[in-house]
Amino acid sequence: MSAVSVPPPKRLQKPLVVPHRHMFGPGPSNVPPRILEAGANPVIGHMHPEIFEIMNDIKSGIQYLFQTQNNMTLAVSGTGHTAMECAIFNTVEPGDSVLTAVNGIWGERAAEMAERIGGSWRLSDHCLILSQALLKYRPALFFLAHGESSTGVLHPLDGIGQLCHKYNCLFLVDSVASLGGAPLYMDKQGIDILYTGSQKVLNAPPGTAPISFSERACQKIFNRKSKPVSFFLDLSWLANYWGCDGKASRTYHHTGPVTAFYSLRESLAVLVEEGLENSWDRHQKVAEYFHRGLESMGLKLFVKDIKARLPTVTTIVAPRGYNWKDITSYIMKTHNLEISGGLGPSVGLVLRVGLMGRNSSKHSADMVLAALKDALQHCHKSKV
Amino acid sequence: MSAVSVPPPKRLQKPLVVPHRHMFGPGPSNVPPRILEAGANPVIGHMHPEIFEIMNDIKSGIQYLFQTQNNMTLAVSGTGHTAMECAIFNTVEPGDSVLTAVNGIWGERAAEMAERIGGSWRLSDHCLILSQALLKYRPALFFLAHGESSTGVLHPLDGIGQLCHKYNCLFLVDSVASLGGAPLYMDKQGIDILYTGSQKVLNAPPGTAPISFSERACQKIFNRKSKPVSFFLDLSWLANYWGCDGKASRTYHHTGPVTAFYSLRESLAVLVEEGLENSWDRHQKVAEYFHRGLESMGLKLFVKDIKARLPTVTTIVAPRGYNWKDITSYIMKTHNLEISGGLGPSVGLVLRVGLMGRNSSKHSADMVLAALKDALQHCHKSKV
Repeated sequence: MSAVSVPPPKRLQKPLVVPHRHMFGPGPSNVPPRILEAGANPVIGHMHPEIFEIMNDIKSGIQYLFQTQNNMTLAVSGTGHTAMECAIFNTVEPGDSVLTAVNGIWGERAAEMAERIGGSWRLSDHCLILSQALLKYRPALFFLAHGESSTGVLHPLDGIGQLCHKYNCLFLVDSVASLGGAPLYMDKQGIDILYTGSQKVLNAPPGTAPISFSERACQKIFNRKSKPVSFFLDLSWLANYWGCDGKASRTYHHTGPVTAFYSLRESLAVLVEEGLENSWDRHQKVAEYFHRGLESMGLKLFVKDIKARLPTVTTIVAPRGYNWKDITSYIMKTHNLEISGGLGPSVGLVLRVGLMGRNSSKHSADMVLAALKDALQHCHKSKV
Repeated sequence: MSAVSVPPPKRLQKPLVVPHRHMFGPGPSNVPPRILEAGANPVIGHMHPEIFEIMNDIKSGIQYLFQTQNNMTLAVSGTGHTAMECAIFNTVEPGDSVLTAVNGIWGERAAEMAERIGGSWRLSDHCLILSQALLKYRPALFFLAHGESSTGVLHPLDGIGQLCHKYNCLFLVDSVASLGGAPLYMDKQGIDILYTGSQKVLNAPPGTAPISFSERACQKIFNRKSKPVSFFLDLSWLANYWGCDGKASRTYHHTGPVTAFYSLRESLAVLVEEGLENSWDRHQKVAEYFHRGLESMGLKLFVKDIKARLPTVTTIVAPRGYNWKDITSYIMKTHNLEISGGLGPSVGLVLRVGLMGRNSSKHSADMVLAALKDALQHCHKSKV
């Protein structure tokens, strides 16, 4: 045995220090102590009967959150992007094409994922021409972000699923930024694949992603000719691990992140306690209160159409004469509070504020309004 | 807005209950309170300067653990399987082939992953014919599991990297079950890609996977003609998020599991405190002590060659006349202690005991020996 040549790093001899701060950006949001503590429970095996019970709890919680009876409902061991790839990898076969509504960064990313394993088309203004595009491109899958957190737009969903089905196309919805904060009914709205993240309205740490597949989606997935590119995200394996395939026993697939499952379960229990409709209602009312406060300060909302405003993530037109980075930095430094700039197509154009889950309260809204007022007074303003 | 039709599940109205148990199976292992508590720190943003510092700490800890100077060193946001796919997805292009040493389940899985995106060949007894296979198949990548936790074999690594390089082949090593518990020198041994998991010797919860890439591996990866199939695991994006690409700023890729990063950092800090060589030494001594205890009870070790025994996971020949499931069930029920049966090729043939990280102690070994003795006395034995 030879000696080690790479010495132990000094930086790891210092203790871990994590600041407390108000997480009012587009996510992750603050995690209440109850949910953090759930995640600090001892590790048990990823194949123990107790973890299967916890996974069954999670499954029923997601069915409630998604308003679906789908048996094929589970949480992916990863973040929203992992769920996005899980949806696309399983449904798209070589030769299939994907149509994505590009109304912000998420549509772009879905299109990029689809391109890596097959063809894709982008639809910039899909409301008008969706049926034409479905007819022309005959996609296997249509992607839409319900809550586009980059632009602050909440997209209506009614009727789209039915239209897709007319053209034998599956309807895939990203609800990472919206779920639990805005009404959504997976089954009634004909959504075939729906996913979200743990770290937004659910207030769990990032690292797990609820996802559900309709019977129609399963029909396509389980009659594929080729295997999906990913073993880790292969739904036939995941379905077995989550007890969704009707088999008597579960086979080892991967080591589930058990402590992240504890937190996710607790976050779903919190939602069940409040009730889904109450949560939607609270997010809507707090958003309206916050928006009125912004407008009374003379700030402008980026999304003009009131009905198209996402109740969870608000985009504010970047105040004229200021560098937006000065504002977010000032607020972080002075108020220990995160709000963020734009993302993708909205970079430089907006400030983004997320009030999600426990953070969706008048108290939090007031904190952001006070911080913004303070920043506008103290940040450098150029003479326009 | 219509009413919800899927009611809140009653099962989520019950509190979360997680049992404490001794995790002496092949992983996950017990997580010390210090590491669990680190993970219960408040969530901060995945793009905050403080998380970048924590990620830098992790990076330097992995460099020490792997004994590498590779700049391209980071943790994947997922389990060992995610790291395995990260390695294969990034290095293998259409037309490339992969050679895997199949000495247990991990080689099979790597081969399956490679097949999903291209060709692969399995090598059953690679020691003798590796150079022939390299010459014949001209693989882009050769996969070997250092610690085969399904069979309990520790595979020697010296010389293989150099042989691979002679044939312009990258050397990929899975060290999920061995790292920190058995000597390994990434740079000296010419390993091009190395990964491990958080939940074995490191004693962190499952959910993150350290990985590192040599200059040679990066040369191939960053000169690909096609993009890897996965956006989430694309090394050019991950490299930027982990500050390994020399760019001044980091771009949003995915929402890193920040609390899992806290735990991983803490587990690396524990390793730095003990020292890598001390950890190797402790695992080796405890394993030898445990093996002597097993043999003195009349049990047989599955791996005959003493030098080929994995110090972290021990495979015991399933005791004759017993149903192995009766033994593991009895020990779980009576001693609140996990040991497991075989996996893949070793199902039905062995019992597996993992003593990893903090669990690698004479005290734990004694607990397992006492539990086994008790089980052999009380479990049903057929008349042979």
